[in-house]
Amino acid sequence: MKWAIKGNIVYAKNSSELTIVENGLIVCDDDKIIGVFEKLPEKFGGIKITDYGDKLIMPGFSDLHVHAPQYKFRGSGMDLELLDWLEKFTFPEEAKFKDLNYAKKVYSKFVDDLRKSSTTRASIFATIHIETTVELMDLLEESGLVTYVGKVNMNRNCPDILTERDAETSIKNTVEWLERIDGQYKNTNPIITPRFVPSCDGKLLNMLGDISTSYNLPNQSHLSENPNEIAFVREYEPKSKFYGDAYYMHNLFGGKNRTIMAHCVYSSDDEIELMKNQGVYVAHCPASNTNLSSGIAPVRRYLDRGLNIGLGSDIAGGHSLSIFRAMADAIQVSKLRWRLQDDSLKPLKVSEAFYMATKGGGPFFGKVGSFEENYEMDAIVVDDTVLNNLDTYSIENRLERVIYLDNEINLVSKYVKGKKTF
Amino acid sequence: MKWAIKGNIVYAKNSSELTIVENGLIVCDDDKIIGVFEKLPEKFGGIKITDYGDKLIMPGFSDLHVHAPQYKFRGSGMDLELLDWLEKFTFPEEAKFKDLNYAKKVYSKFVDDLRKSSTTRASIFATIHIETTVELMDLLEESGLVTYVGKVNMNRNCPDILTERDAETSIKNTVEWLERIDGQYKNTNPIITPRFVPSCDGKLLNMLGDISTSYNLPNQSHLSENPNEIAFVREYEPKSKFYGDAYYMHNLFGGKNRTIMAHCVYSSDDEIELMKNQGVYVAHCPASNTNLSSGIAPVRRYLDRGLNIGLGSDIAGGHSLSIFRAMADAIQVSKLRWRLQDDSLKPLKVSEAFYMATKGGGPFFGKVGSFEENYEMDAIVVDDTVLNNLDTYSIENRLERVIYLDNEINLVSKYVKGKKTF
Repeated sequence: MKWAIKGNIVYAKNSSELTIVENGLIVCDDDKIIGVFEKLPEKFGGIKITDYGDKLIMPGFSDLHVHAPQYKFRGSGMDLELLDWLEKFTFPEEAKFKDLNYAKKVYSKFVDDLRKSSTTRASIFATIHIETTVELMDLLEESGLVTYVGKVNMNRNCPDILTERDAETSIKNTVEWLERIDGQYKNTNPIITPRFVPSCDGKLLNMLGDISTSYNLPNQSHLSENPNEIAFVREYEPKSKFYGDAYYMHNLFGGKNRTIMAHCVYSSDDEIELMKNQGVYVAHCPASNTNLSSGIAPVRRYLDRGLNIGLGSDIAGGHSLSIFRAMADAIQVSKLRWRLQDDSLKPLKVSEAFYMATKGGGPFFGKVGSFEENYEMDAIVVDDTVLNNLDTYSIENRLERVIYLDNEINLVSKYVKGKKTF
Repeated sequence: MKWAIKGNIVYAKNSSELTIVENGLIVCDDDKIIGVFEKLPEKFGGIKITDYGDKLIMPGFSDLHVHAPQYKFRGSGMDLELLDWLEKFTFPEEAKFKDLNYAKKVYSKFVDDLRKSSTTRASIFATIHIETTVELMDLLEESGLVTYVGKVNMNRNCPDILTERDAETSIKNTVEWLERIDGQYKNTNPIITPRFVPSCDGKLLNMLGDISTSYNLPNQSHLSENPNEIAFVREYEPKSKFYGDAYYMHNLFGGKNRTIMAHCVYSSDDEIELMKNQGVYVAHCPASNTNLSSGIAPVRRYLDRGLNIGLGSDIAGGHSLSIFRAMADAIQVSKLRWRLQDDSLKPLKVSEAFYMATKGGGPFFGKVGSFEENYEMDAIVVDDTVLNNLDTYSIENRLERVIYLDNEINLVSKYVKGKKTF
């Protein structure tokens, strides 16, 4: 069935410019977009139109990297670097997710806040625990969001309270989890999730690569986030030519097995080249890379080389679920990188940050992140009245202000895969 | 009259640690603090106590640098550097403040939002216009906040729409403004405000220094914010040994004439030494320095050398009025500076950012920014219930989460100079 929504439409067909249609219409056929129009074409006469007046309508955002079990302590322990922070805050907290009641409490809050946010698609880390990972997936399925969820694998350098001990156990758990959820969900999908190389030995990575291939599942992990972490990988995986190669050797680095790699702050030319060739998605997480003193990823380089790149909130390295905030953060840190580190990489523009949040990261989930023909209909409707009470601003200026002042605006509606979720 | 408020009290006597009294009392005599107590001493039996239960009580924040007329376009034009941004956004907007009706509209919104914020004291830039600067001061006086407000001086390198043309006119306007407000306010004070050296010639600076001295008024300006700006000053004021010296030569750099200098991103050792000797207050504005690609101020160095230093929102180089946000921003950029620029300056801790927002900047306004004896009673009461619904957190952890997640909390009360403003 055909239907439409009307308002001030903003989307990005590419990273260099916004496409803006003031007071325009997005016409859909069930869950697919037919097109954006200034006026309703005659052939669509009589279809149901929801008119959002002067509000802004934009594609829903994709959050390519977020840890659901870390939601409870976001904004805590921010005085630490990655490896210390994992040991003192993250691992003890994730260990608690063997308890279903505890997980229900935290995951319900996480899913509820994600549901109310500007995010329509997300790729999520759970923990090593099967039962509570299934609980998270059940909650997400109810939310109407479309997500990937990974039961985490980890078998080395982990505390006793949070380890699967050996590769065989880890794989057995993973298969058990996959069997348990098989056919259970419409919008909630499994994704193979080795925590990162320091937490997974070569044997485990190899077996996970096999599962990714044989089950035809995508995979996600962390890459080149922090200098200490990279040194660690060099020591533990001497056969790998660079960090990303340690995943690639085991079929966990794109190609047929679609992959998201979070961070990529320190990727070498070889690593970048391999990401490009393998179609790996970079999840840029500027708040997290700042909070954990990791550094600033060379996003301009990734955009210029045509890598797949989207944004991640990276709760709880990042402290906010808001992808609007991630856009502002991405622009901000790109300026500091330009000023302090490498002035050959120009700061990011609004259109580029917006692109990453939409059409950059969206395609990991299918035809997602744009209002072009045949894209899946994900949209958010933004009421920014409170920012407009002193003047009239252009739509482009309104978008910029919404990105920077997102805590002052209201999300009034959200559509995921053609379905209005609020 | 003696009175008290009760709750979880957090303040900083110095930058290295927080002082926390759970379920404690702040006892006051009119507008002055007598002390913080775990239990009410007998001698205060029978005084009125307002009990805020489990809420957090902390000193109100000082915003050392904010441009009221730029409030309307905050979050706009963030793709530009300082000098371009001034020309394209700031100067055309400030020129509109010759119109009283326009100014009333923008200033009312600014003052209302500032009143509702965590800020109790602020040092504010208006524009060159007398009438609307007085309007801003009238509105601030009604708000209950304690502020300094500066009619701006500028007579070179300004657009025709926003210039006082020559030093004499600028001074005549300034004296007229001072006479007009003389004796009008209890909490709203004038401050001499040369925009910055590129906008004020030596003659004007000299005459402003004389006014600062003869009227016994403090002064405020911008310093060493951006490399292009600094090169400009070097060219236009060749007699000055460094940027700050161009103010110092004209008695606009501390000593008897109390001074706030915003930014200080690139201050040389000589400049730092002079700031230290003259007791100049540094207004650190991390969001602005990021948004305008200026760089990152070496705050750790300023703290170590014992400079006076506080935080500034710097609307609209900064996009948020929240000093909680400025604290998080200050910590964040200090980490990136440590990682990218100079690892001899360790990242800032929560206690240090909190100190800058309170006892660091507060003393510009008197005995302000702490709950120690004889301090003026400025306090905010924070309801962070929404952040505590999944667990019990320590008071220190709660403060950190409030700083990072300030858009999720509620300010339930504010006291300025002993008076409850809401």
